[in-house]
Formats: sequence, structure tokens, C-alpha cells
Amino acid sequence: MVQGDPLMINWPAFRGGYVNLGNVVSMSGGTANTTSLLRVMNERAVFGEIFRLGKVSRPELAQATGLSKPTISVALADLERAKLVRPVGLRTGNAGRAALLYEIRPQAGSVLAVDIGRAYVRLAIADLVGDIVARKDEPSRAESYDEVLSQLSGIVDQLTAEAGMTRADITLSVFGTPGIHDKETGILRLAPNLPGWEQPGAVERLADVTESPYVVENDVDLAAVGEGAYGLGQGVSHFVYVSIGTGIGMGVVIDGKLYRGSQGAAGEISYLPVGEGDPLVNPGRGMFESVASADGVVAAAGRLGMVAATAKEVFDAARAGDETAVKVVAAEADHVAHALAGVTAVLDPELVVLGGGIGAQAGDLLIEPVAGRLESLVALRPPRIESSTLGSDAVLLGALAFGLTTARDLVFERAVAMTPLG
Amino acid sequence: MVQGDPLMINWPAFRGGYVNLGNVVSMSGGTANTTSLLRVMNERAVFGEIFRLGKVSRPELAQATGLSKPTISVALADLERAKLVRPVGLRTGNAGRAALLYEIRPQAGSVLAVDIGRAYVRLAIADLVGDIVARKDEPSRAESYDEVLSQLSGIVDQLTAEAGMTRADITLSVFGTPGIHDKETGILRLAPNLPGWEQPGAVERLADVTESPYVVENDVDLAAVGEGAYGLGQGVSHFVYVSIGTGIGMGVVIDGKLYRGSQGAAGEISYLPVGEGDPLVNPGRGMFESVASADGVVAAAGRLGMVAATAKEVFDAARAGDETAVKVVAAEADHVAHALAGVTAVLDPELVVLGGGIGAQAGDLLIEPVAGRLESLVALRPPRIESSTLGSDAVLLGALAFGLTTARDLVFERAVAMTPLG
Repeated sequence: MVQGDPLMINWPAFRGGYVNLGNVVSMSGGTANTTSLLRVMNERAVFGEIFRLGKVSRPELAQATGLSKPTISVALADLERAKLVRPVGLRTGNAGRAALLYEIRPQAGSVLAVDIGRAYVRLAIADLVGDIVARKDEPSRAESYDEVLSQLSGIVDQLTAEAGMTRADITLSVFGTPGIHDKETGILRLAPNLPGWEQPGAVERLADVTESPYVVENDVDLAAVGEGAYGLGQGVSHFVYVSIGTGIGMGVVIDGKLYRGSQGAAGEISYLPVGEGDPLVNPGRGMFESVASADGVVAAAGRLGMVAATAKEVFDAARAGDETAVKVVAAEADHVAHALAGVTAVLDPELVVLGGGIGAQAGDLLIEPVAGRLESLVALRPPRIESSTLGSDAVLLGALAFGLTTARDLVFERAVAMTPLG
Repeated sequence: MVQGDPLMINWPAFRGGYVNLGNVVSMSGGTANTTSLLRVMNERAVFGEIFRLGKVSRPELAQATGLSKPTISVALADLERAKLVRPVGLRTGNAGRAALLYEIRPQAGSVLAVDIGRAYVRLAIADLVGDIVARKDEPSRAESYDEVLSQLSGIVDQLTAEAGMTRADITLSVFGTPGIHDKETGILRLAPNLPGWEQPGAVERLADVTESPYVVENDVDLAAVGEGAYGLGQGVSHFVYVSIGTGIGMGVVIDGKLYRGSQGAAGEISYLPVGEGDPLVNPGRGMFESVASADGVVAAAGRLGMVAATAKEVFDAARAGDETAVKVVAAEADHVAHALAGVTAVLDPELVVLGGGIGAQAGDLLIEPVAGRLESLVALRPPRIESSTLGSDAVLLGALAFGLTTARDLVFERAVAMTPLG
């Protein structure tokens, strides 16, 4: 599963402060000098393997961890006492005795995932095994900062009630937003679509929505995590998720982990120097975004005499054979190919997942010409290019995937801190 | 120190086969179920800390590893018996008893570093603490594959004799070359400057030069490692080394580790779509390289009516105030700024180190205009830009740095495998 690391978490109890989770949950690593530390390491390993494998038997855990069966038994007993795992029946059918199976106790923790978009807000609560127990999408009241906060707060009340829990039961909340969360000032940068979020401390007010520790992540980065966990990026070490729609952005996964860059601005490919920028489109935007985003497509069509209100109209017309629209789509493919040539020259990814309104829905028109043009622009084999299959759920699923691993660590820490070793 | 990981090593004993060192030396990690495994883990940790810290006392090692002093004493005794470390005198001056200091035994291992360039070959042998014990640079006979192999072989004989050792004493050899080592075919791709290296199995014949396991790495990647270990990249998590000279390439360091990409082609920024490519320059080369490499600079000058045999002449003329040369340099700065804008949009590095003939030696002319232009092309704060201080030693030093960490692991594995635990 793709993970973000290191993870900066906002703890409502320390408003304005940030805790690097790495310091909280990581072991000193590489050395071990006490029996209890060893025991905690072993429990963590067993818990992690159950999390990864689902329902497992003791022999399978011994196999997966390299630990002895007696050690596994001790760890399982401790984990069961801490209410982190539970026995879940027998596996029969093979020769020999039936094996008792264990699984993560779903109620041992939960994650609230929130996708704050310009058009929609999407929220879901999942239990610790990742099953979504409550979910709601609504048109966003994003035009007002206070409105969207109270909208989110209301939905969280609904969802927790639906799931038979309270806000206090949520282990971790993950918010996906456009832009870059500036951790020094608490503002969102490069998020003009969310007015009000550039005021100092804006991000911290998300504590009004949740009582749990929370994380704020760039939405395209989360979508990349979602692709890695549930989509086309599964099992791919190095890939990028390129979102092309009203805006343009990229999430970078390296060695299975989200890469953010030195200021969180890795993947801000709207600023790739592709084309010379379209002067008809908002000049504050990056060159690539100004020519290749939905607005750029509409502007390009207009310049050729085609009247279109949305990029979708242009792509639909191209599918119907309209010559002007076909030309606009060809230019769009050329821009995208040049941008991906830049991405490939720098990162040499194995896979490019196209997402966003244009990327996910116009793949039938774009992928072939983009791949063809890209071939002539790169040093070696170009990356595979595919349209996302997660669609508009990519950010939400990414937030869940991102949150689950961390929630697992949090509940383990709490349980181990609270349960004396027997 | 910057490390490359995972490291593919060629073992002469298994010609044509490759061993992923990760499988050989890494611990199972996270679990420990036997006393001897614990002991090896502890010894490895102690050895690693001595390697990192230099001369250290037992209390300092206890502090650095979190292990108890008796455990440290056992580990030190084992390491001393295995001839990996040695006592090196007392530290006095503080209150209390003088502390006995330990250090890595320099003769416990050695690294042969080789930079195979078009113009020069540079070789050095360093002991396990990184001190260079023999070194030689020579004009390269790179125009012939067989000639350069025999040249290297001769120099290795000289250097080992000078160092009072034999080829068999070398723990690990690291070769830096242009291009990308294709591990399936054993050829070097994208290395037109080294004729003959594109024949199948060419890389494996480096076993004629050394009897040790060896690694072949891209030279620009090694230079990035060198910058991280000894140059401007020290202590910087995310940086790039951009080499601009007869060719153009980039080494990418992420989280302190060399990043190679899915095919080893990460950083092949000669292929960035900058400018539309110079038709006067070899059309097989990438767009950015064709306009911004030394040949590109000479061609640009020629197009403005200036006769220059080398890029250096153009830069010297610009320093002397020649108007045409100043224009060529301005265009070069603009190309470089656009390329770095692409790199920044994708990677958001903290630092760009400029190397290569142009990058390292024309920084006085380029850095200011490049930084100024870059400012207007990026989303947030542009990265710092500085000229390499390692000059033409960057590749060789990178090969040494790269090799030392691995050699340390190799000698530890051998010593632990051969020395029964007491």
C-alpha cells in the first residue's frame, strides 16, 4: 500500500502544534536491548501482518514474520487482550487440524476521510479494516469558508450517528484539499478555488469538524495514494497520477511512497513550461495549466471559432467528428505529451495514471495520440499511460488508505501504552 | 551520507548474474527471535556508528545506539576479534577516567573507484575509512573499447602496487560511466561517447579490470552522490545535480538517496522539451541538450556570426564584454531556467548543484540570470542554485562514497560469516 511519510499530524489538543508521527510510533530500529522492547516489536510485527493479510492463522503469521509459534501465541494473546485483534473462526478443509484464524477487530479504530473540492465535498468513515461504514457526497458550499466548515461539521454528525459512534470515536481524520498546506502559517497556498483558506490559521479550524488528530493533504497527492492502494498503481513502485481538469496537478509516488518535495510543491506541473502560456486564460496560472486545463481547451476552441461553454462539449464534438474540435483535441494531446516528456525526463516513472475531469473522461481521445507523441520525445521506453478507474472517488479513497495505516499505528501505540505487558 | 539503494552488484564469480545486495546484507528487520540474531544486529549497529562517527568511546557508542555498556563491550570485542575495528588511544581532558577510543580498522576493506569519461579516466583506491591511498588520472583511450579496458587494467596494477596490495584485496569496485547500464543485456545505453560499450556483455568485461564484486553506475548519478557526501548536497534531503557540458544529465537525490527511476533513466533531462531542438546539432540528441550543451552554445554563437571552437571561448568572450557572446549566454541562461522550471515543477528540490564543464565553470555568468528567470516560472520559492565545488572530482568522489557504505556491509558480512560468535 502506498504511504505518505513522514506524516505531519495536527493534534487538536496542541492547537497550532504539529507532531511528527515518526517520532511517536517508530522503533529505535536496528538495536534491541530489553525483553519488553523485543516483545513490543514482535507484537507490532504480528499486528502489521494481520493488517496486511486479513484473516490469518498462527502458522501463517509465524511464516510471515519469521517468529516462532510460541512467540506468535504470546503476541496474539496480548493483542487480543488489548482489543486490537479477535479470533474469527476456523479454517478447515486442509489435512491436519483446523487452524484458528485471527483478524483485526474492525471497531479497534476508524478513519474519517474528507475530500474538500470546489464542486463537491465527499466524506466517508471507515473502520480499521477499511470497510466504509458511512458515506455522503454533497455539492460544496466552498464559496464561503465558514459555510463549508459548518457543512462538513453537519455531515460528520450525520455520518457518526449513522455509524453508531461519536466524533470522539474517530481515530484519525484525513482532509484532502487543493493547494499546499503551509505548516508554518496554517494557510492553504495555491488554492484559489477555495476562497478564505488563505487566512492565517484557516487549516487549524478543521479541528472544529473533528475531535481526532487530523492530517491535511493535497487532494491530487491523496488521489495518487488512492491509485496506489486501490487503483492502477497497485504494485507499481514508481508512478505518477496526473490530474487534468479545471486545474492541473500531479501526485508522485516513489518506491511506493508519496513524495512531496522540499516545500510540498512536488508535482505542481501546472507550472511546467509547456507552450508559452495562453494569455486569454488567467495569467496567474502556470503555463501548462493555462493551455491544457478545461479553460485552456475552451479558449483554444474559441480561438478557432468554436463556441463551447465547457471542455466536455469540445471533447463530445470531437467524438462526433467535428473538425475544429478534433484540432483542439490534437493540440491538447500535444501539450500533454510535452508535459509528460518533462515528467519522464526527470522521474522515469513506470506508469502515468490520468485523472481529473479531462484525464479520466477523455482518455479515449487523448491516450493514443499522447503516447504516440511521447515516444518521440523520451530517451528510452515511455511510461504506460492509463486513465484512472477510481474516477471522482480517487481523493476520498486515497484519504482512507492514507489514514488507515496511520490509524493502525495510533491504536497500537495507545493500546500498548495503556496495556501493561502481561 | 547519500546512498544508492537498492544496489545491483556484479560478482565476477557469477558472470552475467546479479546479486541484489539487499538480500545479502539486510536483516529481516522488525522482529528478532534468537539471541545470536540480536547479537549480530547489535554488532552491526555498533560497527555502523563507529563508521559514522569516527573515533568513539564506549559511552558514546552506548549513547548513539541505545545499547547498554556491557552489550557495547561484547560487540566491540567481537568486532575487534574480526579485525573490523581497533582501539586507537585514550581521550583525556574531561573529568573522570580517560575513555578508550575505537575506530574502524582502515585495512579492513578498500574501494576502487573508476570514472570512465570520454576525455579522462580517473582512478582511486581508498581504505575503509575513506582515505585515498593511491590515485591516478590519465587522458582516456575511450575511442577504443579494448584500449580503455587495458588502460584501466594497467592503472589498477599500478595503484594496487603503490598501495602495497593486490587486486584480490579490493573489497568492492565502483565504475562511473556515461549512459545507462542495461542490466538485462549488459550494454551501456545512451552512451554514444564511449564507442564499443553498446556491444552485448561489454559491461561484464569490467571483471577483467578487477577481481572484486563491482557496480556500474551512471557518472552523473555518482556525481550527485559525491555532492551529497562531500559537496554542497551535504545534509540536504532533496537535491539535484545538473551536469551541463559536452552532454547534459541530472542526478536526483530524494530523502538522501539516489533515485534512478523505473529504467534507470530518471534525470535524463537532455530530453526535456526545452526550445524546439537545434537542427544544426546532432538530431539524435534530446531537445534541451541540443540547444544548451557545449555544442549547442557553439552553434548558437555561429548563428549570430561568432566564430568559436569551444563553449569556453564563448563564455570567455562574454566575460570580456563581447555583445554577441553576451546574447548567447543570455539565451543559454533562458534555456537552463526553463529546464530547471520543469525539474522544479516535478521535484520541488531544495537545491540545484550545477556541474559539468559549463555548469561548474560558467556559474559566474549563469546563476544570477537563471535564478532570476526561474523565479517567474515556478509555483513557490525556487530552489537555491549553486556551482559544484568538487569540479572534475565529483564522479570519482561519488564512486568512493557509494562504494564505502557497501564495502562496510560486505566486510561486516564476511567477518560475521567467518567468525563464530564467541
